Amino acid sequence: MLPQLAGEIRAFLVERVCAVGGHLGPNLGVVELTLALHRVFDSPRDALVFDTGHQAYVHKLLTGRQKGFVGLRQEDGLSGYPSRSESEHDLVANSHASTALSYADGLAKARQLAGEQDRCVVAVIGDGAMTGGLAWEGLNNIGAARERRVVVVLNDNGRSYAPTTGALSTHLRTLQKGGRAQTYRNVFTDLGFAYVGPVDGHNIAELEQELHRARQMDRPVVVHVKTVKGKGYGPAEQDEADHLHAVGVVDPVTGRAAVAALGTAGTSSPSPARSWTSVFAGALVEVAVRRPEVVAVTASMLRPTGLGIMAERFPERVFDVGIAEQHAVTSAAGMAMAGLHPVVAIYATFLNRALDQVLMDVALHRLPVTFVLDRAGITGPDGASHHGMWDLSVFSTVPGLQIAAPRDPVQLTELLDEAIALDGPTMLRIPKATASPGMEALARMDGIDILHRSSARSLDVLIVALGPLAAQALKAARELEEFGIGSTVTDPRWILPVNPALPALAARHRLVVSVEDNLRQGGAGTALLEACQDTGVTTPVVRLGLPHAFIEHAPRQQLLERYGLTAEAITNAVLVARSAPAPPSPMWASAPLAARAPSAATPPKTT
Amino acid sequence: MLPQLAGEIRAFLVERVCAVGGHLGPNLGVVELTLALHRVFDSPRDALVFDTGHQAYVHKLLTGRQKGFVGLRQEDGLSGYPSRSESEHDLVANSHASTALSYADGLAKARQLAGEQDRCVVAVIGDGAMTGGLAWEGLNNIGAARERRVVVVLNDNGRSYAPTTGALSTHLRTLQKGGRAQTYRNVFTDLGFAYVGPVDGHNIAELEQELHRARQMDRPVVVHVKTVKGKGYGPAEQDEADHLHAVGVVDPVTGRAAVAALGTAGTSSPSPARSWTSVFAGALVEVAVRRPEVVAVTASMLRPTGLGIMAERFPERVFDVGIAEQHAVTSAAGMAMAGLHPVVAIYATFLNRALDQVLMDVALHRLPVTFVLDRAGITGPDGASHHGMWDLSVFSTVPGLQIAAPRDPVQLTELLDEAIALDGPTMLRIPKATASPGMEALARMDGIDILHRSSARSLDVLIVALGPLAAQALKAARELEEFGIGSTVTDPRWILPVNPALPALAARHRLVVSVEDNLRQGGAGTALLEACQDTGVTTPVVRLGLPHAFIEHAPRQQLLERYGLTAEAITNAVLVARSAPAPPSPMWASAPLAARAPSAATPPKTT
Repeated sequence: MLPQLAGEIRAFLVERVCAVGGHLGPNLGVVELTLALHRVFDSPRDALVFDTGHQAYVHKLLTGRQKGFVGLRQEDGLSGYPSRSESEHDLVANSHASTALSYADGLAKARQLAGEQDRCVVAVIGDGAMTGGLAWEGLNNIGAARERRVVVVLNDNGRSYAPTTGALSTHLRTLQKGGRAQTYRNVFTDLGFAYVGPVDGHNIAELEQELHRARQMDRPVVVHVKTVKGKGYGPAEQDEADHLHAVGVVDPVTGRAAVAALGTAGTSSPSPARSWTSVFAGALVEVAVRRPEVVAVTASMLRPTGLGIMAERFPERVFDVGIAEQHAVTSAAGMAMAGLHPVVAIYATFLNRALDQVLMDVALHRLPVTFVLDRAGITGPDGASHHGMWDLSVFSTVPGLQIAAPRDPVQLTELLDEAIALDGPTMLRIPKATASPGMEALARMDGIDILHRSSARSLDVLIVALGPLAAQALKAARELEEFGIGSTVTDPRWILPVNPALPALAARHRLVVSVEDNLRQGGAGTALLEACQDTGVTTPVVRLGLPHAFIEHAPRQQLLERYGLTAEAITNAVLVARSAPAPPSPMWASAPLAARAPSAATPPKTT
Repeated sequence: MLPQLAGEIRAFLVERVCAVGGHLGPNLGVVELTLALHRVFDSPRDALVFDTGHQAYVHKLLTGRQKGFVGLRQEDGLSGYPSRSESEHDLVANSHASTALSYADGLAKARQLAGEQDRCVVAVIGDGAMTGGLAWEGLNNIGAARERRVVVVLNDNGRSYAPTTGALSTHLRTLQKGGRAQTYRNVFTDLGFAYVGPVDGHNIAELEQELHRARQMDRPVVVHVKTVKGKGYGPAEQDEADHLHAVGVVDPVTGRAAVAALGTAGTSSPSPARSWTSVFAGALVEVAVRRPEVVAVTASMLRPTGLGIMAERFPERVFDVGIAEQHAVTSAAGMAMAGLHPVVAIYATFLNRALDQVLMDVALHRLPVTFVLDRAGITGPDGASHHGMWDLSVFSTVPGLQIAAPRDPVQLTELLDEAIALDGPTMLRIPKATASPGMEALARMDGIDILHRSSARSLDVLIVALGPLAAQALKAARELEEFGIGSTVTDPRWILPVNPALPALAARHRLVVSVEDNLRQGGAGTALLEACQDTGVTTPVVRLGLPHAFIEHAPRQQLLERYGLTAEAITNAVLVARSAPAPPSPMWASAPLAARAPSAATPPKTT
């Protein structure tokens, strides 16, 4: 009966996910486990926290959301991760890894205070996520409180995307091989947990029995469950790269792309020949050939960040540290101290995990480390916690860090070379998109590329475009000419700190429009505004960027349109600014101190 | 011979540190260990990395810096931490905890690539710092690479400030008690390390022998050294609070404050009756009495963050998670999900460790968690990595997070109450200083306090003061009146997001001066500038704040003066702005499109 249900769930997952794209391998691996969890624990009275959350489709099916799978990861459709707004069975919407144990510790503490210790707290976490420091902090706290009931279900499939790296993984393999007899003592028991396992994660009866046993223990317990990523679906089981961790729209028979994945709802990497990631991958190998001091670091994302090619060419010069962004950064600092130039390739949204390390371990020591932020900007169907929209605002605080955004593949190569030649920390950001076609500059002025200059009226508007958004800026410039408005379009190349030539250029225009796929607040436009203000340049700066909010899942292009990062939006912003009323000019120099309009002297209202 | 030297070093440390203030307990505990390290390893050929670095005084003495101790932690004097600019024996200047293993991993990787594996890498880390997730990430990576030589010296004194919490600590106690026989297998051996110990950390011969043994192993090894914090100095050994972890100027006979510590070079907490920390401590207990849902979380800083009083009153409602800022935040999110209102009290500089957790675990879920940032702003003698100067720039990126800075104790109480009443994340920042005297408002206007309004010319300058800097703003306002310049002084109370009444108020003035002890870049002043620009308010905003740089150690007051956060600097900024030439006004509405000055039409120079 239950195995039959498991089979039906698998068939449904394969059919649906292949049709619309999404996380496939992780969900196929937890069908029996999720069934057993819901049979043994009483959600939502008992709390089920799924770490990262890309393995929660089965949980969604079992909590009444089967119909929603038609619109999985589409706008207004079912989220690809747990979602508090979808169901009382979902507690966490963040899909960054290694958090579940800490949430569970907090939930258990609250239940203890409320005298509700009969309500169990269950954290489901993969062995890949266990490499993250936050998981260790969680273990150290949960294991110390023997009076609280937390069940840690370790979903051990031996992988994150790729096989899990690190010493813990070796230890887990030993535990799996040793079977029950060998496991009376291990890293978890040393940390205060009871240990149950290893359990066959595809045997529902065994799972139920062991989860029951764990539930009845009035103490923290680790249930070590052995699962197979992609279980029960040939193309996934046989895919050695990542067991179809995530797919775009694929043919369910072969598991291969049915249509070009890019721009669809899928998460598979864009076509390797054209994505920004692959452009970076090629450029990195090229510079690594020339410069033996260049090494690369990834936090469990070797292929997704494009380091696979370098790893094939120079295996000893690429380091996968596991899902451990902090260590990626600080170990890179250590390598740089010893004369290497590490390139740390990481998704933009994940580097927030290591702000303190970028600031204090790399920048304080002025070390030559280059961060390459993939998936910077709007990413699309993975939703709020995957958009790379914070990096310019956050990392602009780091003294001495120079940040660039290449507008086209030629610039990526050039900027990567410059970054590696600089004797200090640098950062490049690239989006999850097809690499833009080449956009040649008319001229380079003090390091700034001039991409367009209207012949007659070039000094009306200065458009400062960030990276590939330069294409939209160029389009807007042509549109503006039809309105009789001239413009200069620039690509500053190195965005932060602001090139001093930029406010000087702004001063020769009547309006500046900055365009970035980062928060409007604190981003590149704001830095330019600050620089203008500091140098007495009063040209208004209209900042186009992403709103100060969490942005839901929807296709990248749709979100760029919604948030006004298009040629049309740039044009509109200029037209609106042109028709705005004259701003008041209450500055001293233009109006002597004594001469104030009576209206301005009205005292502020008080409440 | 060596014990005698150890005794002389201890006497020197006690004499010097008591005279000028500094870290005492940690250094007294590692005298023999540091002697043995320098005898067994060949620094700088072998790398010695001290985690956190407050235990590096002996290392400084042994590497030729005895004379510098006269100016320890004084401006232009010896740093209280390792410093790359002081000595080739120092590799790391950052004093945030739990980093040493990651640096060591990077150094060892670089040496392997260079074929210099005979150069040993040694990381000295306390058991307290081992609770941080970054240390776990380091262990997981180092332990997996059996071919690299990294010696982890675990300086186990059972404490950070207070006794170390968590499951690992219990395990370490077991290893200590068990002696050699019991330690054939433990958490370190499970993670791929050889284990040497436990070693008596005050027996030089034993230390040397065991470190030699570790050095000769061609693989990662943990040397578990048992030390006593404050060893050999009665007042430190007997101090149960923190074994004189850090002191101001103290009487060497008693270990007690010789003069009022505040404002001196010492790091001891300011006088408990008057510090901002103690004001917060009292306010928190008061609100906890009224609101049973209030709980408190500390990352190993119970007393330094003022939670000690609450812990005495409500021990079951205060949680010390160890040096684990990420877990502090995410476990608070878990508690908030279950109906509690956690107050997470943390040093401002350390919360950068948990940006991602504040953003994705708390704010994405709109959870009611209040962060209280102690030591926000300039801290003084602890130098670059202890100044709390990033928080406004970094955390202003977090959607829905409301940030306040109380100007006086009354406001702290009021704002803490408001924060806890709000249904979402909030943050309060307080400096390391004596709490300001009360500053009553003339009026509250749309939530903004008006502290001063010049009678005749109140609309010349709007001074927006952040927290206790309001006192300097008020003083400046009086000075400005002597120059015939009127001003309004406001305390916005809730700084971020910007109160919409603030740009409206700015529009009625000729100049805005914002004052904050945070980075100028991206801080409260910038947020106001953004708000002005977005609402068409053209009043210039002069932003006073800290420079975009790492700031060295020096007394707080001295640094505030140097960086222009004083009444005099505010006054000067206004006088300079008044005498500035008229800014150009190239805006459209004031100058029609066709009418441009020829000079402005000069095309930009190209290179």
